[in-house]
Amino acid sequence: MLFHKIVVDESSIPILRDFNVRFDRDAEEDLYVLDASELMAKLAAGAIDAGARIIFGVNVEDVIYRENPLRIEGVVIQWSAVALSGLHVDPLFVKSRAVIDATGHDAEVLRIVAKKLPETQLSIHGERSAYSELSEKVVVERTGRVLPGLYVAGMSTAALYGLPRMGPIFSSMLLSGKKAAEAILRDLKQNLE
Amino acid sequence: MLFHKIVVDESSIPILRDFNVRFDRDAEEDLYVLDASELMAKLAAGAIDAGARIIFGVNVEDVIYRENPLRIEGVVIQWSAVALSGLHVDPLFVKSRAVIDATGHDAEVLRIVAKKLPETQLSIHGERSAYSELSEKVVVERTGRVLPGLYVAGMSTAALYGLPRMGPIFSSMLLSGKKAAEAILRDLKQNLE
Amino acid sequence: MLFHKIVVDESSIPILRDFNVRFDRDAEEDLYVLDASELMAKLAAGAIDAGARIIFGVNVEDVIYRENPLRIEGVVIQWSAVALSGLHVDPLFVKSRAVIDATGHDAEVLRIVAKKLPETQLSIHGERSAYSELSEKVVVERTGRVLPGLYVAGMSTAALYGLPRMGPIFSSMLLSGKKAAEAILRDLKQNLE
Amino acid sequence: MLFHKIVVDESSIPILRDFNVRFDRDAEEDLYVLDASELMAKLAAGAIDAGARIIFGVNVEDVIYRENPLRIEGVVIQWSAVALSGLHVDPLFVKSRAVIDATGHDAEVLRIVAKKLPETQLSIHGERSAYSELSEKVVVERTGRVLPGLYVAGMSTAALYGLPRMGPIFSSMLLSGKKAAEAILRDLKQNLE
Amino acid sequence: MLFHKIVVDESSIPILRDFNVRFDRDAEEDLYVLDASELMAKLAAGAIDAGARIIFGVNVEDVIYRENPLRIEGVVIQWSAVALSGLHVDPLFVKSRAVIDATGHDAEVLRIVAKKLPETQLSIHGERSAYSELSEKVVVERTGRVLPGLYVAGMSTAALYGLPRMGPIFSSMLLSGKKAAEAILRDLKQNLE
Amino acid sequence: MLFHKIVVDESSIPILRDFNVRFDRDAEEDLYVLDASELMAKLAAGAIDAGARIIFGVNVEDVIYRENPLRIEGVVIQWSAVALSGLHVDPLFVKSRAVIDATGHDAEVLRIVAKKLPETQLSIHGERSAYSELSEKVVVERTGRVLPGLYVAGMSTAALYGLPRMGPIFSSMLLSGKKAAEAILRDLKQNLE
Amino acid sequence: MLFHKIVVDESSIPILRDFNVRFDRDAEEDLYVLDASELMAKLAAGAIDAGARIIFGVNVEDVIYRENPLRIEGVVIQWSAVALSGLHVDPLFVKSRAVIDATGHDAEVLRIVAKKLPETQLSIHGERSAYSELSEKVVVERTGRVLPGLYVAGMSTAALYGLPRMGPIFSSMLLSGKKAAEAILRDLKQNLE
Amino acid sequence: MLFHKIVVDESSIPILRDFNVRFDRDAEEDLYVLDASELMAKLAAGAIDAGARIIFGVNVEDVIYRENPLRIEGVVIQWSAVALSGLHVDPLFVKSRAVIDATGHDAEVLRIVAKKLPETQLSIHGERSAYSELSEKVVVERTGRVLPGLYVAGMSTAALYGLPRMGPIFSSMLLSGKKAAEAILRDLKQNLE
Repeated sequence: MLFHKIVVDESSIPILRDFNVRFDRDAEEDLYVLDASELMAKLAAGAIDAGARIIFGVNVEDVIYRENPLRIEGVVIQWSAVALSGLHVDPLFVKSRAVIDATGHDAEVLRIVAKKLPETQLSIHGERSAYSELSEKVVVERTGRVLPGLYVAGMSTAALYGLPRMGPIFSSMLLSGKKAAEAILRDLKQNLE
Repeated sequence: MLFHKIVVDESSIPILRDFNVRFDRDAEEDLYVLDASELMAKLAAGAIDAGARIIFGVNVEDVIYRENPLRIEGVVIQWSAVALSGLHVDPLFVKSRAVIDATGHDAEVLRIVAKKLPETQLSIHGERSAYSELSEKVVVERTGRVLPGLYVAGMSTAALYGLPRMGPIFSSMLLSGKKAAEAILRDLKQNLE
Repeated sequence: MLFHKIVVDESSIPILRDFNVRFDRDAEEDLYVLDASELMAKLAAGAIDAGARIIFGVNVEDVIYRENPLRIEGVVIQWSAVALSGLHVDPLFVKSRAVIDATGHDAEVLRIVAKKLPETQLSIHGERSAYSELSEKVVVERTGRVLPGLYVAGMSTAALYGLPRMGPIFSSMLLSGKKAAEAILRDLKQNLE
Repeated sequence: MLFHKIVVDESSIPILRDFNVRFDRDAEEDLYVLDASELMAKLAAGAIDAGARIIFGVNVEDVIYRENPLRIEGVVIQWSAVALSGLHVDPLFVKSRAVIDATGHDAEVLRIVAKKLPETQLSIHGERSAYSELSEKVVVERTGRVLPGLYVAGMSTAALYGLPRMGPIFSSMLLSGKKAAEAILRDLKQNLE
Repeated sequence: MLFHKIVVDESSIPILRDFNVRFDRDAEEDLYVLDASELMAKLAAGAIDAGARIIFGVNVEDVIYRENPLRIEGVVIQWSAVALSGLHVDPLFVKSRAVIDATGHDAEVLRIVAKKLPETQLSIHGERSAYSELSEKVVVERTGRVLPGLYVAGMSTAALYGLPRMGPIFSSMLLSGKKAAEAILRDLKQNLE
Repeated sequence: MLFHKIVVDESSIPILRDFNVRFDRDAEEDLYVLDASELMAKLAAGAIDAGARIIFGVNVEDVIYRENPLRIEGVVIQWSAVALSGLHVDPLFVKSRAVIDATGHDAEVLRIVAKKLPETQLSIHGERSAYSELSEKVVVERTGRVLPGLYVAGMSTAALYGLPRMGPIFSSMLLSGKKAAEAILRDLKQNLE
Repeated sequence: MLFHKIVVDESSIPILRDFNVRFDRDAEEDLYVLDASELMAKLAAGAIDAGARIIFGVNVEDVIYRENPLRIEGVVIQWSAVALSGLHVDPLFVKSRAVIDATGHDAEVLRIVAKKLPETQLSIHGERSAYSELSEKVVVERTGRVLPGLYVAGMSTAALYGLPRMGPIFSSMLLSGKKAAEAILRDLKQNLE
Repeated sequence: MLFHKIVVDESSIPILRDFNVRFDRDAEEDLYVLDASELMAKLAAGAIDAGARIIFGVNVEDVIYRENPLRIEGVVIQWSAVALSGLHVDPLFVKSRAVIDATGHDAEVLRIVAKKLPETQLSIHGERSAYSELSEKVVVERTGRVLPGLYVAGMSTAALYGLPRMGPIFSSMLLSGKKAAEAILRDLKQNLE
């Protein structure tokens, strides 16, 4: 609701330390409070230093796939400005070794795959109502590979598997992101071997 | 249709008297006419004096639940301004001992529960066309608890159970609200015992 | 497509004469050409002189019904301005001895009845693509009573029964309107007897 | 405010009789009440029978003029649908012996002439606030020719000359229309002589 | 910014007591905190009990005036729904002994008078930037009669006279409203004598 | 993504030569690059010289059909401006010996036929995600007649038969258009014999 | 008004012949009728063959200039999609030896220069109402260089110099374009010498 | 135009080094190319580590001032969501020792001051057309204090003083920001002495 503080529990302290994000301990609730802008800027800066490329202003409007065996091999992108303006313009293709759907409640990429590649038998159950204590655990557990080349992290995981909605404690969002990254690294390494 | 008078029949006179709302008797039709603004202001003032807190400017976008046994334990809220502006902002949680859906024809909270918690087997039948004489009776009869922690009042009752639409006589709206309040009081008392 | 002439064939000449609408004969096509504004103004003036009341600026948003036996007894109306502005305002009820759906392709009133009174087993098939020669005949044939108190005329007839779309020759529109009026007159007379 | 009755005083009774519009006398207020739809339909039908052509669905977006001496000779029209849709489409020209601005409060045609033909020294004063008793008299008085070929009637007269707004009694609207028509007839006759 | 508490200083305690609005003292700041909904409901209920009529859903789109001497005698109203929907509909007139512009920053009624009755020489200076300590004093001082029949209260006073914007302490809003009411009562009494 | 170059492979060189469109060879990728505007202008000019008539500013909103045997015999058109503006205006009919759906991803005409003429058993599978190497071949293969009088070309073919989306190499678009034209020519010739 | 024919007089026949555009002579009016799509496609194809590059999907949002002496040296462009979507995105610069404003009634580029480079003393008079016979002559006469590096053609000429609006005969549009091209060629040649 | 690279010249290399932003040298043009996302994330992270607080989701809708002597003492803020949704909600006040307008072309804060505090005699000249070589120098020169408590940086400087628009080389944006920060530090230190 537009407030500029984020609350996490102890489980995400190592991630905050990795990215040099400062936090205050709220002893009464045994929680940690941090600045939302600092978290965003330092997660981005850390990811970029680790080799990430963040491209603003594009929408994913489809995926690239191959058959036998079925594998997601990239995304079809379009300028967000084109989508907002309602113009009819052809998109471009970006090939990639791994695609993660981290689009949150909407699970935008997974929905495209479920609709346009029915042989994946992917079904978006839609997230359930809010039950944080349960969801914070199961969202991290279910994070990871969905199909060869396609991964899910964060609230898209709840949307995909019909898990409850999480509450205002952000730890599971961070842990889910880390777990997805580790799953991709492992798969990429196996592919190279 | 934007007129500023409300018509009730004799059954709601005690409620009007409780809230000190003035009325005129229309002898020919055996109905009572009152000022819409006066009814709104005095219902609100009376409720607040009785302990209610009215929070403007927020939408309910989800509910909080617990399982075994299933129970509604609160609501997930967002600024209405955020919803209207189309921004993506995380909501907050408000816990409560009872949630009432009094959102009228749309039955907004019940629809969320029916969609996101399918094990409740809640089904929104949708209101039928207008048949006031019948509806004014059955809407009050069916008002009350829907699930542990979740209640329905007013036209949401018609939407939930597939009852006919009510007409311009407002008595059943008032009586339904009173009946829902009594049901909640009874349940809260039982829980405390 | 915005042109201000209307074309009819010989079958509607008696109606044009009744309402004092002038026309020119196109000998080559054996059709009659008339002015769209003149037709509109004189149909309205003639209907009003015959006792009709035309109320502008209201939408029908529901119907009034009674059960055992099921009968449509009126309409629930709202200012069109309220619908366009998205405000939440209670409608009013208008009782009537007959309700005609002459809303054209959308069959707005019939759709309400089909959705909100499922025991009528009314099903809106939706009009088929264009086949004027056939449709001009069957639309008139199927015009008339749908349920006790509810009638259909014009393109709503095609939408209800899945008939083909009609073309730019307007005769069947006029004949359908006349046939619906005669059906209502006959039914009202029987009810009085 | 969307009601379907119109009120006139005695001065417009002859016009109502000319067009065969029925009315009821309200003895208490010494006014006459009539049906809005009937007035509209019968004014249109009467005008058409007298030779008028009513073209729906077009906007006037400019005027045609000639110089030495300056004279308005027609209008530049466009489909209203094109204006509403924001497409860029060239308009067409319609020549005419007289152009009347009867567009009401906006005085749309006069505003075009004032802006695009500054040598006319036409200045749109804008109507004043409401003072019906005064305005009902002066609007009729000032109705008539504005420039060679250009006339004004109804509330556009108030907008042009800075006269007060009129109230809900419609007589002056009818009398103003009649006076403009008479002025045009007189001028056309003089031009022919 | 959407919070549901209002802060006042000691000067408005008598008004709160008149309307039975509860408040808490914040000793540190020497201010009083109250519930926004309670203030709204009880101000409305108190005004209605004192004889006010609150009409929802209408816009003021013009004023009624008389000349020699110039005097505002009422308002021209339209359904808000009509304004929002962009339909062209004639308004109605409501005569009144006093018109108050309490429309806030926009000073909507005063702007109409300034534009449409230039002989009033009314000029809307527009509010200045925020300087609460100064504005809270001068807004109350300048509240009152603007023209015979026309009064100003609240932030419209700042807009009219070019006073600074007020801050989040609401006392001056309440005191300004009370002062305007007293000015009208005094003028009405003088007119009756 | 708004760039003004188009890439084709060797297969479309004969078409480019037919229409006098210039191109550069990119030796590294074995592809040909050309100017998007030049392609559009010269395809249009060549088609017009070959007898085509291009009508701007109209939408197809339905088809004309005949039964026994079922055959598509033309289209029902409306000004695009009317559709964009939301006005209710009657369309016109254009008869034709062949109708091609080349509306791309939306397959607009085929969707109308599938919905409004269910006896055709036409089913729009919707295109699959992107797999250019496969799609560039199968889209051309499946291009051609769908029903008597109805043909499909370009991405509508993928939408109709559930083929994968094509990528940024445009050859198959050109080859599909040519193949559809040849199929129509062959069918028209047979009909004449 | 959306019709797909264009009318020219004899003066533009040489241009039509240059671009291989077919036309029919209307002997009665001594005018020539041609197909709008053919004119557009062949003007574009001819210009491209002569060396033009047409870039779709960009807006000109500013010009590039140099001082002492003042000269327009290019344009600042942005994707039209960005402008339509309301996003905040930095534009790019395109240098050019000549900039022509051929944006029609709006004279978009000239308005930018008049507003943002006041020392040019450029003043957009705005076109006058319609007087085709006069305008068709003076628009061509006034076509040409406005400032060093900046030229005007077509209806922008009327907007710049306050000339009357032209009618539906398109010859002057073609002749104005040709004259502007010749002025630029002459100036470029002089600059090279 | 949505590309994700930024170009700077040598003058901003020290700033890039301060914030640990990586860059590539383009030897041919003697320019440096960097990643837009990296620059944004690291400027934000560096500023936050230096003590800045970045608050998302609020608009500045006014300033706080004091008189004798005139001084800007803070800003009046509102949720951006409220502004986008068109709701009427009271803003809050934030006091500050320095306010910088770095809103770019629109110079939003300066425009408020110029309009609402006319005694500042602040006049927004509006930026001129593009002349990068000149503007890159003068924008930095003119960056700094505008009034006591109010500073300007970046393109708002051009808007305020009527300087030309800058081009796609970003160095002056960075240098202007640094210069404004230094001016504020110097003034704050003087105020403390």
